Amino acid sequence: MMMDDDVEGGNLGPYQDRPRTFPNMRSKPYTPFIVRVLMGINVRVLFIFLLLGLGAIFYIGASTSPIIVFVFAICIISFLLSIYLTKWVLSKDEGPPEMAQVSDAIRDGAEGFFRTQYGTISKMAMLLAMVILCIYLFRTTTPQQESSGLGRSTIAYITVASFLLGALCSGIAGYVGMWVSVRANVRVSSAARRSAREALQVAVRAGGFSAIVVVGMAVIGIAILYAAFYVWLGVDSPGSMKVTDLPLLLVGYGFGASFVALFAQLGGGIYTKAADVGADLVGKVEQGIPEDDPRNPAVIADLVGDNVGDCAARGADLFESIAAEIISAMILGGTMAQRCKIEDPSGFILFPLVIHSFDLVISSIGILSIRSTRDSSVKSPIEDPMAILQKGYSVTIVLAVLTFGVSTRWMLYTEQAPSAWFNFALCGLVGIITAYVFVWITKYYTDYKHEPVRTLAHASSTGHGTNIIAGVSLGLESTALPVLVISISIVSAFWLGHTSGLVDEAGKPTGGLFGTAVATMGMLSTAAYVLTMDMFGPIADNAGGIVEMSQQPESVREITDVLDAVGNTTKATTKGFAIGSAALASFLLFSAYMDEVAAFAHEPFKQVDIAIPEVFIGGLLGSMLIFLFSAWACSAVGRTAQEVVTEVRRQFIERPGIMDYKEKPDYGRCVSIVASASLKEMIKPGALAIISPIVIGFLFRILGYYTGDPLLGAKVVASMLMFGTVSGILMALFLNTAGGAWDNAKKYIETGALGGKGSDCHKAAVTGDTVGDPFKDTAGPSLHVLIKMLATITLVMAPVFL
Amino acid sequence: MMMDDDVEGGNLGPYQDRPRTFPNMRSKPYTPFIVRVLMGINVRVLFIFLLLGLGAIFYIGASTSPIIVFVFAICIISFLLSIYLTKWVLSKDEGPPEMAQVSDAIRDGAEGFFRTQYGTISKMAMLLAMVILCIYLFRTTTPQQESSGLGRSTIAYITVASFLLGALCSGIAGYVGMWVSVRANVRVSSAARRSAREALQVAVRAGGFSAIVVVGMAVIGIAILYAAFYVWLGVDSPGSMKVTDLPLLLVGYGFGASFVALFAQLGGGIYTKAADVGADLVGKVEQGIPEDDPRNPAVIADLVGDNVGDCAARGADLFESIAAEIISAMILGGTMAQRCKIEDPSGFILFPLVIHSFDLVISSIGILSIRSTRDSSVKSPIEDPMAILQKGYSVTIVLAVLTFGVSTRWMLYTEQAPSAWFNFALCGLVGIITAYVFVWITKYYTDYKHEPVRTLAHASSTGHGTNIIAGVSLGLESTALPVLVISISIVSAFWLGHTSGLVDEAGKPTGGLFGTAVATMGMLSTAAYVLTMDMFGPIADNAGGIVEMSQQPESVREITDVLDAVGNTTKATTKGFAIGSAALASFLLFSAYMDEVAAFAHEPFKQVDIAIPEVFIGGLLGSMLIFLFSAWACSAVGRTAQEVVTEVRRQFIERPGIMDYKEKPDYGRCVSIVASASLKEMIKPGALAIISPIVIGFLFRILGYYTGDPLLGAKVVASMLMFGTVSGILMALFLNTAGGAWDNAKKYIETGALGGKGSDCHKAAVTGDTVGDPFKDTAGPSLHVLIKMLATITLVMAPVFL
Repeated sequence: MMMDDDVEGGNLGPYQDRPRTFPNMRSKPYTPFIVRVLMGINVRVLFIFLLLGLGAIFYIGASTSPIIVFVFAICIISFLLSIYLTKWVLSKDEGPPEMAQVSDAIRDGAEGFFRTQYGTISKMAMLLAMVILCIYLFRTTTPQQESSGLGRSTIAYITVASFLLGALCSGIAGYVGMWVSVRANVRVSSAARRSAREALQVAVRAGGFSAIVVVGMAVIGIAILYAAFYVWLGVDSPGSMKVTDLPLLLVGYGFGASFVALFAQLGGGIYTKAADVGADLVGKVEQGIPEDDPRNPAVIADLVGDNVGDCAARGADLFESIAAEIISAMILGGTMAQRCKIEDPSGFILFPLVIHSFDLVISSIGILSIRSTRDSSVKSPIEDPMAILQKGYSVTIVLAVLTFGVSTRWMLYTEQAPSAWFNFALCGLVGIITAYVFVWITKYYTDYKHEPVRTLAHASSTGHGTNIIAGVSLGLESTALPVLVISISIVSAFWLGHTSGLVDEAGKPTGGLFGTAVATMGMLSTAAYVLTMDMFGPIADNAGGIVEMSQQPESVREITDVLDAVGNTTKATTKGFAIGSAALASFLLFSAYMDEVAAFAHEPFKQVDIAIPEVFIGGLLGSMLIFLFSAWACSAVGRTAQEVVTEVRRQFIERPGIMDYKEKPDYGRCVSIVASASLKEMIKPGALAIISPIVIGFLFRILGYYTGDPLLGAKVVASMLMFGTVSGILMALFLNTAGGAWDNAKKYIETGALGGKGSDCHKAAVTGDTVGDPFKDTAGPSLHVLIKMLATITLVMAPVFL
Repeated sequence: MMMDDDVEGGNLGPYQDRPRTFPNMRSKPYTPFIVRVLMGINVRVLFIFLLLGLGAIFYIGASTSPIIVFVFAICIISFLLSIYLTKWVLSKDEGPPEMAQVSDAIRDGAEGFFRTQYGTISKMAMLLAMVILCIYLFRTTTPQQESSGLGRSTIAYITVASFLLGALCSGIAGYVGMWVSVRANVRVSSAARRSAREALQVAVRAGGFSAIVVVGMAVIGIAILYAAFYVWLGVDSPGSMKVTDLPLLLVGYGFGASFVALFAQLGGGIYTKAADVGADLVGKVEQGIPEDDPRNPAVIADLVGDNVGDCAARGADLFESIAAEIISAMILGGTMAQRCKIEDPSGFILFPLVIHSFDLVISSIGILSIRSTRDSSVKSPIEDPMAILQKGYSVTIVLAVLTFGVSTRWMLYTEQAPSAWFNFALCGLVGIITAYVFVWITKYYTDYKHEPVRTLAHASSTGHGTNIIAGVSLGLESTALPVLVISISIVSAFWLGHTSGLVDEAGKPTGGLFGTAVATMGMLSTAAYVLTMDMFGPIADNAGGIVEMSQQPESVREITDVLDAVGNTTKATTKGFAIGSAALASFLLFSAYMDEVAAFAHEPFKQVDIAIPEVFIGGLLGSMLIFLFSAWACSAVGRTAQEVVTEVRRQFIERPGIMDYKEKPDYGRCVSIVASASLKEMIKPGALAIISPIVIGFLFRILGYYTGDPLLGAKVVASMLMFGTVSGILMALFLNTAGGAWDNAKKYIETGALGGKGSDCHKAAVTGDTVGDPFKDTAGPSLHVLIKMLATITLVMAPVFL
């Protein structure tokens, strides 16, 4: 960025013309319909409704379990804190009008895309809800359900309602992420004019707001559903449902969340990278203008992309991660409690909710620990923002270890196995350590301080080809260590759980699987803080764009550049964190699927025999699904980027004045081209992911019907799920790491190494970076979601295969 | 190539200096020690020995089964035919001395590398043989072996002997492939001076010679081992081994073959692509001299690479494919015959040997059907060599269908199920059709006549980055159709077998798995002809190189260019064929592994429960192994190519006269650099593939010992094998297709499309081609071998896991 200034060479002349370079009217922010309705109601009436709602929630919570009341209380306090954070952020000034104008253009683009994107998604969700309803109305019930007097229609409505609630919450999670980022970006830019520390604080608090909302909503959503079903179905009263079977009713919530997250991530990921690649190919490579230059017609689309692709999508992604993990852990906890005949199983079932409630508390402390220096009016020298964020993370981790110990003692103590809680606390520790090691490995492979990226940068000196070969090798190689770590943590957590002393009626140890579940919780026990660091990235990136577009002085750019660089690192490490937890969570969901099939099939379903040809084929198809999905996600970006290139080239030809700031580029056209292309392109891979497991399960069910194996469909889907998960984990690791390494190899060369910016070596590195863009920000993160969606879709659609 | 001539611009001046541009002494070809000893013996004595050997073979054959005699007879006739073919090829003239000199330099390089490479491989094989011996001396025996009175040491010696014989035969297969190609290349060049048709015929017959030797040796090796064990162990006499258990003793042969093939493919693949990439990066890109120009110091290394990388390695690869497929089909045939209590099971066991004997016959007819035109002295216009090869292939396919029907009726007719043979004939047809469809799909994705490669070429017009993104997407997407085809053919062959009427004692249909085995045989039933077409490629490529190096007139180059282009297509389609058969064969080998574990463990081993955490981890590790192996194979090429680049740059600087033909480049240095680097680099991925399944199986066996699951090691290895196979198939498809498509997108642009040679679009396409080189010729083909080696290593090493 610093060298780019040579290109512009102190062009203060066009500075006066600046208002021409972006839309010059301030538009009103878009408010969703439901918010407008709420705002139309009298405040007092609203307050009364709110109180009534809260009262109802606490009433059913109190009728269920005191633990639920505790969870509710923590969530509501967290929401209050998040309101404080957002008020604090919004109270910051928006800077000079030229900044606000850029920010408005970004906000309009993001909100416009969000509206159409979520419009499409909600139509698809409604359609799918109808399909689920029909399926559930025509399927058989499980013996547990029969014994508890649940009819077909009740189960059908419960599943559909959970699905829709999950989808809605996931949508809100995405909206919140975007809402705050399009407002915070300009405030960070403005704060950067004053001090680096203040800019950092604004970005962190904005990220913290949406992180708390995302995690809190996942927790409270499940808690409300759980409590509502508990009271409605009269659980644990004689002749009705057992509490240990209750979590299985929640799977629809997880599926709804994954469904929305998948399309949000796909659409957003395609949007952001198509705009980025397209803008760079013409702007940087052909015209030689710097990144985020106001003369580039695709620049607003690029900045919009950060919001819809990174903020909104990552919000939905983490939301569904946490929701899926909580539900699967609740199912496993229930199953185990039932097998061990534990008197009060609610501790084991509700444990994940408590862990994530504590997550809200400790992450909030971590977020608030990042403060402005006392006297923010004195410009302090720029500190390393990474060190500040890490200090906050350390605080959070220490608190996580402590609260994990406390929660296990509180929730998991049982007379049958008095030391079991300690084993489970150690499982949690395993998870926390795994998260830490994953972050470290990701850093090792993607940070240019270490060997791999330097080797990659070196390979660029012999050309584009060797750069790509080296990057692909690096990405493929980087799958090894994470797999070893995951393997060790699964085995050790399993054996800690196994030896916890919990035994079933026959005296067989049964705590193993729950041990892995607790490790997963441990891994996710600092999720809110990690999400905050992740959200920080795109906000800082956007702030940098606004600073560049509004042509602020060099010193302001330096600050946002530093924040942007840190944001890149935190984004990369969050991906490591996300894929690690997805790997653990998917194993839990797989076990839950086996339990569910057994329940429907009225017979044990403990083994999937991969020596049966159809099951082998299921595995082949599952792995193939991952390859095809990645292919379509990458090629969608390539195609859309080519459209952007054509449009930007056209504008430069038709409006030759753009380069001299004499004509205004048509930002809107690029925004609408990218938006409509991404909407179109997200359908194909998304539909593939959703339809193929259903179709394959159904086909093999029919085949099984004619060949006398009624469980064939379920078996094939199980193996498809398992192979797809394993391939998905590896493919996501490959794509994320290769992309991150290419990006940083380019950055390393830009620091002046190996010839520096503009050299042939740098050009080769830019090629690698372009290739890495769809890898690390479209296909890779979409695979995180896909892995868990495969698990939840098979859970919900199990009746189709049986 | 045609445009390259502009660069040289009729430089007849340096033509006189030509002898200076390559080594000017004719060296004697290297003769292996064993051949020299044989040649030292009196011819009559040798003849008597030969007769005695043949007599002994036929004697034990006759004592075993008339089918074995039939197989022996066909193999010996084929060997006689192959001697005729090689005499015919060697009788052709070697052309002018400048051609012979180039050819000698290539031969020296290839033989030198072969000696050191196979020296290293044979040392490793001896070491491994010792390890296997120790393991087998300390393991337990199976109940079958006990009942047949086989001691530990007998089994140990049998396994080690089969391993060494397999390794030796695999080595010979590789040597034969290289031996003929380094002699045929110059004869093809020379024939190209006379007529295209004659050049084609020489190349095809040379390829046919090694194809027949490779397939014949696989068949006769197994037949001799089978007959020898049959006679030695007194099979089927009371109190000794049953014939249905005999095939399990042959697995060592398959493992030996895969072991050598893996290192041959890795070493050869790294050699050829490192030399190619290195030569291109400096020669084509930096200095602007055409491919195979004598001024390029790496050109001889590049030409040597074609021989050691394509001919030798592919010979060993196909050898082990056929060996592994025959052995696994024999095991399955034996198991099924035993279950169905078929009176004479030898038909089912020996069926694969008969099919491949017929393969020798029909492929020979196909090879011989490609003839010179009557009057070769009249220069006919260049016909499309692809059409000629395809006609030969059609002849072979039609004959394959006929002989398959005959063989099934002859071998698989049983009174118990009179129509079973017809079902199995249909299975064979399924296999033949699958092979055809696979070849078609490969063509669709890699030929520039079709959509995908054109889209890829189009993506090059927006830069290097979009070219790579499009190529990666294309490769990932191209896995879908082959997987669907494999799935359909496995299911349909399985059900054809299942409904064949063959039932076990309990009346349960048992023919399913054997049906898939028969389909695999159908797929490989034209292997010799396909291998001929494949060998044709590198020979034509080399001939082109010799023509270029010896600066022949334009018309000769045109002929070799056309042959070279056809060779590229046949090489790509063979890879599709190889991976398809590997996918089918690996499923058979997996079943064989399960049978073997059950035999050792004295308990049924029918199911692998992927819900056990350790088994899930085994799967993760198996898939990870594929990723890591591919990474190391690709980065080995990248590193070695960088060494070549440095050396070539050095020579151009230190000997400035090279560019004016005034100084001779030091070809030898490049050859020795590439040779020593490839030898070093092949060890790491090869050792990974061999050691990791053993280590993991052993570790989990110990873990299982302490946790009360004695079969844990075997289960984890089974899942590792299965997941590794599935990931390997997909990864190999991805790498091969992406590489082939990049290559042909470049060729498409070179025909003048999208700006043609020298345009920016072409440069981007060259980048893609460079990236594709290690994909399609190093990592991809090595994965074919790896997949089968994983299966055979687990079969042989099973005692370690139990």
